This record gives sequence, structure tokens and C-alpha cells, in this order.
Amino acid sequence: MPTTASAMAAFAADQPIGPHTIPRRDVGPTDVAIEIQFCGICHSDIHFLRGEWGPIPYPAVAGHEIIGRVTAVGSDVSKHKVGDTVGVGCLVDSCRTCPSCQEDLENYCTTGSTGTYMGEDKHLGGPTYGGYSSAIVVDEDFVLRVPANLDPAATAPLLCAGITTYSPLRHWGVGKDSVVGVVGLGGLGHMGVKLAVAMGAHVVVFTTSPSKVEDAKALGAHEVVLSTNEEAMNAQAARFDFILNTVAAPHSLDPLVAALKRDGTMVLVGVPAEPHPSPSVMPLIFGRRTIAGSLIGGIKETQEMLDFCGEHGITAQIEKIKPDGINEAHERMLKSDVKYRFVIEM
Amino acid sequence: MPTTASAMAAFAADQPIGPHTIPRRDVGPTDVAIEIQFCGICHSDIHFLRGEWGPIPYPAVAGHEIIGRVTAVGSDVSKHKVGDTVGVGCLVDSCRTCPSCQEDLENYCTTGSTGTYMGEDKHLGGPTYGGYSSAIVVDEDFVLRVPANLDPAATAPLLCAGITTYSPLRHWGVGKDSVVGVVGLGGLGHMGVKLAVAMGAHVVVFTTSPSKVEDAKALGAHEVVLSTNEEAMNAQAARFDFILNTVAAPHSLDPLVAALKRDGTMVLVGVPAEPHPSPSVMPLIFGRRTIAGSLIGGIKETQEMLDFCGEHGITAQIEKIKPDGINEAHERMLKSDVKYRFVIEM
Repeated sequence: MPTTASAMAAFAADQPIGPHTIPRRDVGPTDVAIEIQFCGICHSDIHFLRGEWGPIPYPAVAGHEIIGRVTAVGSDVSKHKVGDTVGVGCLVDSCRTCPSCQEDLENYCTTGSTGTYMGEDKHLGGPTYGGYSSAIVVDEDFVLRVPANLDPAATAPLLCAGITTYSPLRHWGVGKDSVVGVVGLGGLGHMGVKLAVAMGAHVVVFTTSPSKVEDAKALGAHEVVLSTNEEAMNAQAARFDFILNTVAAPHSLDPLVAALKRDGTMVLVGVPAEPHPSPSVMPLIFGRRTIAGSLIGGIKETQEMLDFCGEHGITAQIEKIKPDGINEAHERMLKSDVKYRFVIEM
Repeated sequence: MPTTASAMAAFAADQPIGPHTIPRRDVGPTDVAIEIQFCGICHSDIHFLRGEWGPIPYPAVAGHEIIGRVTAVGSDVSKHKVGDTVGVGCLVDSCRTCPSCQEDLENYCTTGSTGTYMGEDKHLGGPTYGGYSSAIVVDEDFVLRVPANLDPAATAPLLCAGITTYSPLRHWGVGKDSVVGVVGLGGLGHMGVKLAVAMGAHVVVFTTSPSKVEDAKALGAHEVVLSTNEEAMNAQAARFDFILNTVAAPHSLDPLVAALKRDGTMVLVGVPAEPHPSPSVMPLIFGRRTIAGSLIGGIKETQEMLDFCGEHGITAQIEKIKPDGINEAHERMLKSDVKYRFVIEM
């Protein structure tokens, strides 16, 4: 028999978000019940709630950057205890048996992992409901420990924006000898800068906004390049080991590919609604360069990222809002009017 | 004081190729003089001679798949001797000091390697002249040893088509546990099949031509997929560790990207005149997949490739022509009417 939780739900693609009551399952043997304290707002939330990624059942509840306090644990739970501050990211379950799951890459689960929202609830049936909510019940294996020294509200965005940038930086071996570009300075980009700097890389931000030059430096970037300046872009040729491209608007990839060294990689983590213009093949061939994609990270790596952030004192730059401010926050995000992440105080 | 050689030259972008006399330098201390016996015809030759890659000085002489016999060596030459059968590929020199050259990757020379044609002759000034010619003089470091068991004519295409496919197969670690796709069955593709099979991979050819199914199998491919068959393409999803895409005509990359496993790579070695349609970001992200480019190979790796071909008895499938057949050969190549490489008997 499920209990209920209060939530902020979308009732239709074109309707404002408002209060709603959703079911949450009773705590099973391996479950952790969490009172949600903070939930970051990701761009994906907006795409999802507005049905831009395909039709969804309404009412719908988004939110996958969750921080909360454990209120109950199942009889078999060993990883978390009542009172712990914990996090939940984009996934609440996966098949656990496919090669990706066996390699701790639940994010690439072959049979399809269960999204914190936009998933199918294995226990109650129907859709999963995300973190714009007062409470959630999650299997302990998908619940993260939060370092005690980190501000809980500013830690929420690490669960998506943090791991989405941390995972490719690690996978492609960014370290102290790396020259790293970060394209775009939004929710993802600002985390990419902080993480790459903490990994010891020389970090160059590419932005189209002159207003963001000082912001990028304040976040730790060593250099900032205005990507609208052709001359400045030409000067970047063959400089970068790795470029993390966080921009979800269509843009020419060619000048960025040309900025890679031989054998350099540009990873796309933003999904534009319309495709990027066709990349030229020549700059890929002349330099054995690579364009790749990357999707969040596995649970083990997400914990590693949180621990890394604890060691380095890294959190997101946030603007806190109350639940009744979600609609306005979504509107402001569509105008890139946030530095750098809204976090709902539930 | 230069000597001369007879050659088959283009005198203008839109004129047929005909006889011409070109200068060749005297043999310097580190030089090898080669009487050219065979020269393969690469698609690049046509693009170059017709000025499709930019304006060129005419008369122009193409050809970078050269096999010949050493007729003289300079006083300091130690790697080759008179009478040896040797090869020359796409490069006749490089800066030798940049990081790429120091890593035996002259093909990615930062300051620009010297093309066998389309380069600037460091010794005589003016353009370099390629292998559609009776003789050539090349620094010994850019001259390759040819295994004695290989047919010299059929070995010529290894110098470009062979190394262009061998290098990415090796760089991305193709071996006996790999499932490898080869897209397109032309000069490059048919070499890719032979080499990947010899490396122990399970090789699947993607072709648009039903007529090539049996040809592909005869070359050693384990499976052939008609890429025009949507159902057959869908069945390839997430199967491939590596895909070698040799097609130089624009085509959708998405079904091929989707055919890669997680962390799989598709390498483009063909340069279309018009870009490929924009690849979707989603299939890159959902699977951490990669699109990369690759350009021929370094001299050391080219020698390794020739030795590998010697061990495995691999040469190209060729159709021999006389120099006066070059124009017709070019026309037939534009209609893909060759299995799989024309080789000029000089």
C-alpha cells in the first residue's frame, strides 16, 4: 500500500506547474525513504514536462538532482541509515545484469535503466515521479552518500550537472597535463570548469557572451575565448587535448574540432532540439580527431564524483527558490537567466 | 642539376591526361632513385588533377601508390640498395622535428609533410610530381621495403588504400575479439576487409549494392548487410566495436553510429565533396559512441603494414592498365566501375 507525497506537477504540456499529490511506495527491504530537502532544476526537466521529447502521461513530476534526509530504511539496507544526508540522481534502478550494469555503467544499461522521472515505476506501475516532491523511496543501490562538508542545497546539481561533466573528463583521462576547453557556461559548463580545474587541467572557456568572461575566470578558468571572434578562434588551433561541449543550441562544431590537438576529443553532452550543422570531415581526418557523446555516469562514478567534490570543496553556484517559483525559474532558464542552477527548497 | 623523367600529366582541370616530361633531382647523399614499375590510381588523384581541392599549378602529375626498382642510392643511404623492389606512398618528406614526426606520425606533421604530389618540392622548387611517371627520387626515410612474396603490381595500392585502412584498424585496437564493420567496398573498403579479416576480426560489410554481396564474401567478409534495407540495419544495433567508413559520398551516419556498441568508434576515411547530413547527437550520447577521422599512416606504420601483408599474403585486387588508359580509368572510377583498384604499368 503506497503512501503519498506532495509534489509540483505539470498537468499538460502548456499548463503551469502546480501542487499535486503523488503515490510513493512503502519502504521495501532494500529501500531508503528520503525526505527531499532540495531539488535542482535541469534543462531536461523543461523538455520533459513540455512533452518536447515525446508524449508523456500527465500529471508529470520532474526533478533528478535530489538531496534529502533519510527517514526510514528497509530491513536489508546496509549502505544508508536514518538521518543521513543523501542524494538521488537521474536513475533509480537498472537491469543490473547487462554488460554495462556489470561494469558499473548503469547509465548505459542495455535493457534501459529506470529514470528518476520519465521511467516506468517497477513497484507501483505507471510513471516514475521525480524530485519536485516532498519525499521519494529509492533502492539503496541508487542512493548516494553526500560528503558532510558540502552545502546540501548547492550539492543537488552535482547529481546531474556534476556527473554529466565529471564522467567524460575522467573517461578521457583529463589531468594535470591536459589543456581542456569547456564550451558554454551554464549549469553544465560551470561545473565542467570547476571539476576540470580541480583535476589540475589548464581550462579555457569558450563562450558567445562577453558578459561571461569575468564569471568564467571567477569560477577558475585560466582563459576565456569569445567563440564569436574568428581571429581568437583561429588562434586556438590544435591546442586542446579535450573539449567538453555543453551547449544544447545548434552551432558549428568545426572551429572547435580544429582547436583539438591530434588525437584530441570533443565530447558533446548537450542535445540540441535541431541538429548541429554538419561537421566537416577534413578536420577530423587531419589530426585523427574525435567527436563523441557522453551520458551522465554510473552510480559508482557518481559516488566517486561526490567524494571528489567533498575533497575539493566543490559545489554548484545556485539560486534557491521555493516550489511556487518553479514556473518563473523555467521561464528564466529558457532565457539563460540563471547563475548557474536553480535549486528548489522543498 | 636535375635529370628528367617521362610522366602522364594533366595540363588543365578539364583536359585529358597526356605525356609530359618532368624534372627529377639528382641523387643526393640520402636519396634513392627509383624506376617506377607500377602506380595505383587513387580517387584523390582525380580530385587533385581536376582542381577540385583548390587551384593547382599545371601541368600536374598525380600518383602516390608507387612500386619500383632502386636504380641508384646516395652515399649515405643504408636502408635500400640498387635492385631492391621498394614502395613510395603519399609522403616524400616531413619536418621531422614536430611532436607528430618524433612519434613516427609524419602523416600528422604539424608544419605540413611533403606530399608525393600536391606538395612543394624542397629541392627543385615548384610542385612535387607523383608516380604517373617513369622515375622518382626520394629520401631513403620515405622509401618502403616491399616483401618479396607479394606481387609488385598488386602491392602498389597498399601504399595508400592499404595504410589508410590498416592504421585506424590498428590504432583502435581491432583484433580477434572485435566485431568490425566496413562501409563501402571500393579501393579502400576491399583492403579494409582483407586487413580486418587477417587481424582476426569478425567482419561485416555494409554496402548499398546487392551486386557486391558475393564479392564481399569472396574477399573474406563474414557477413554483408545491405545498408538500404532499414530492417537489416536495425538488426545491427549496438553490435560493432569498430566501423571503418570508406564511403566518400554523403550519407546518413546515424544508422551506423547506432550499430556501434557502447564505447564503439566509427572512423571516417573518405572525404565527401558535400558534407554528410548532420549526425544526431542522441546516439552518440546514449552509448558514449565516437565518430573520428584518420589520415593514411606514418612511415614506420606503413612498413609494418607492408610486412603484415607479406606475412598474410595480402595484396589489392587490381586491374592493370597502360599509361594511355589513365583517362578511361578515371572515368570508370567515377562510375565505381573497377574491382578494386587500377594500377598503371609504367
